[in-house]
Amino acid sequence: MTDTTHSEATKKMWSMIKGIGSAMMTTEDGGVLRARPMVAAQDDFDGNLWFFTHASSHKVDEVQGDQRVGVTYADPSKQDYVSLSGQARLVRDKAAMSAHWQESLRTWFPKGIDDPDIALLKVEVTAAEYWDAPNSTMLHAYGYVKAVLTGSPPNPGGNEKLSFT
Amino acid sequence: MTDTTHSEATKKMWSMIKGIGSAMMTTEDGGVLRARPMVAAQDDFDGNLWFFTHASSHKVDEVQGDQRVGVTYADPSKQDYVSLSGQARLVRDKAAMSAHWQESLRTWFPKGIDDPDIALLKVEVTAAEYWDAPNSTMLHAYGYVKAVLTGSPPNPGGNEKLSFT
Repeated sequence: MTDTTHSEATKKMWSMIKGIGSAMMTTEDGGVLRARPMVAAQDDFDGNLWFFTHASSHKVDEVQGDQRVGVTYADPSKQDYVSLSGQARLVRDKAAMSAHWQESLRTWFPKGIDDPDIALLKVEVTAAEYWDAPNSTMLHAYGYVKAVLTGSPPNPGGNEKLSFT
Repeated sequence: MTDTTHSEATKKMWSMIKGIGSAMMTTEDGGVLRARPMVAAQDDFDGNLWFFTHASSHKVDEVQGDQRVGVTYADPSKQDYVSLSGQARLVRDKAAMSAHWQESLRTWFPKGIDDPDIALLKVEVTAAEYWDAPNSTMLHAYGYVKAVLTGSPPNPGGNEKLSFT
């Protein structure tokens, strides 16, 4: 993929992510893959996803045991799907928290970034794929299979693979 | 959780899954967690999810290397989220394929279950969780955090953890 195409595909993917809103973040938990809904706190995408979290939460234990995470966004009504793969790490830097803070988060964290348990989970995205099939699940899924088998993007609808490393 | 509660929670979860339709299935692929959209081919749920696939597809290689999969269903517009954890295995038994076959699958598999490359991915679900928060992302996500910290289901909206083993 050329740089221009990569940039366009990343822009398209971020537009899908913003439209969908909530992610499911998959981690490894004692030998099983487990996911929970999360919302990224950022206005644009430079290769990282940022999620506020409670540092004492179980998912933080999980990523400290195994930093690999999968983040998915899905809107079945539009047949829009995004899969991002990355490495998560806990960030407790006040400047980073301040940069990502949104007032709507205060329901979770009444004390804001002064909450002693607040932290960011930074996901450094290493690869991503998206599916954007306007017509039907069939075409979309066929597209995926075709993409996997041949390495070429399906038509109609798009499946793009992106690498960020 | 009592058997009755487990049964009701499972029924609720399956209703959410049917309403959402498409899953994202996460597997481990060469050290990273990677997901792709899939649609289960079944009318009810007895602890297993069944997906038709091409036996030669890359995801089949992945589950043969590491049988653990995570399956998520998400409808951000309703704040409905389901996370299922399980073990996947390839099933090429004709009777099982016939039992799950749906004519709508013919777009993928023109030859139906006589396609030499058709197979089922059977996911034996070992645990599942769902989130069903009617009010807002905030309550929903707070609910999740509360559930993780205290082990009790959040209110309003529900977070139920189910075990199938």
